[in-house]
Amino acid sequence: MNKILKLNTRDKNTLLKTPFISSLGPSALAGMLEIATVTNYEARDLLFREAEPAEYFYCVLNGYVRLYRLNKDGREADIRICGPGDVFAECLLAVGDQYRYNSQAAENATVARFELQKVRQLAEQEMDVAKAIIQCLSNYLQSTMDCIANDRLQTAPQRVAHYLLDNCPAEGGSASIRLPFQKSLLAGKLGLAPEALSRAFSSLKRAGVTVRGRVIQISDISALRQI
Amino acid sequence: MNKILKLNTRDKNTLLKTPFISSLGPSALAGMLEIATVTNYEARDLLFREAEPAEYFYCVLNGYVRLYRLNKDGREADIRICGPGDVFAECLLAVGDQYRYNSQAAENATVARFELQKVRQLAEQEMDVAKAIIQCLSNYLQSTMDCIANDRLQTAPQRVAHYLLDNCPAEGGSASIRLPFQKSLLAGKLGLAPEALSRAFSSLKRAGVTVRGRVIQISDISALRQI
Repeated sequence: MNKILKLNTRDKNTLLKTPFISSLGPSALAGMLEIATVTNYEARDLLFREAEPAEYFYCVLNGYVRLYRLNKDGREADIRICGPGDVFAECLLAVGDQYRYNSQAAENATVARFELQKVRQLAEQEMDVAKAIIQCLSNYLQSTMDCIANDRLQTAPQRVAHYLLDNCPAEGGSASIRLPFQKSLLAGKLGLAPEALSRAFSSLKRAGVTVRGRVIQISDISALRQI
Repeated sequence: MNKILKLNTRDKNTLLKTPFISSLGPSALAGMLEIATVTNYEARDLLFREAEPAEYFYCVLNGYVRLYRLNKDGREADIRICGPGDVFAECLLAVGDQYRYNSQAAENATVARFELQKVRQLAEQEMDVAKAIIQCLSNYLQSTMDCIANDRLQTAPQRVAHYLLDNCPAEGGSASIRLPFQKSLLAGKLGLAPEALSRAFSSLKRAGVTVRGRVIQISDISALRQI
């Protein structure tokens, strides 16, 4: 069982910088901090399983958390990779009383969690909380729609190129990127099997992309845009 | 140019039954009806294009509207098919000032539209409007996450079987379903090319699924669940 802790100063400072919390006025902020608890997870720990009764919504403070579904054969598909500042299970503030996917720490992770019932009450009193919820639902809905469009329109090399370009400086001919997580997590994020990701990286060699561990060198950003 | 009309009684009655509007209290409801206008579109009319300045969010009263993206080769991918009662472009109440996808009437369609700026003001005054926005963002976010998981986990025949089962009576051994739209729209909704949808229907023959025009006969619902 993971220890549930009150916020320490470092956690609190991290939380204050997350998009959800940073948008709140003083009274809504105090209300949210009051009900926040912090939990540390080790890599591969489950936070919750699909169909379990939903009690909390979550904000990642450190590390990465996978949200994924299983099919009846036990095959997994990632729906989202949440990193520092990301909020998840926020839908449940409005809809449903069961988690809708599995959630697993992809590496050591620290998350803040908030009891759904208490946040619902707070949102009734504090328009700021309702607004922050609308803001983060909207942001995440947009990126989820992007994900559907990219899955449906892009080949595997295009998905990888798109990810790299999103994480490159806009200017300059070449770039070096360090993946913030393992390549297996990038594969899941892009909806690719690990072998498909490897093949995609191989085919991007022609466009000047070389991979060494987590470090990816891009010799010609404009060539990557042509993929 | 499509005529922009004030709500007539029939449109108003339809609108009052949509999930977004039906959740509002009297004062919020009056505010929303006050700013609603209605537009009729013919099949294939564009409502808006990706990257155009965003002015409205929409509620479908009648017919179907496709939301889709184009890639640089001009290939289209549907992101969502909106039917009666569905709301779209609601993200833009919180985030962004440009439409994020193209929107086209899939057949003759009637939509109510609401100026984003006016709804933002109304949501500041009326907690009911903010709550209705949270509710519909949450519902749609859940179905969008389902869509990613299904795209990533299910084969084409499984996607079709899943759609049919969702639209079947829960009880009984056999069923007959009439598609509410053309098969090409079902293909887009399920992220399949039209040929892939045809192949999926062919492979479902073994499970007792026969298709004649828009009418689909399912001779053995429990066999379909095994797909």
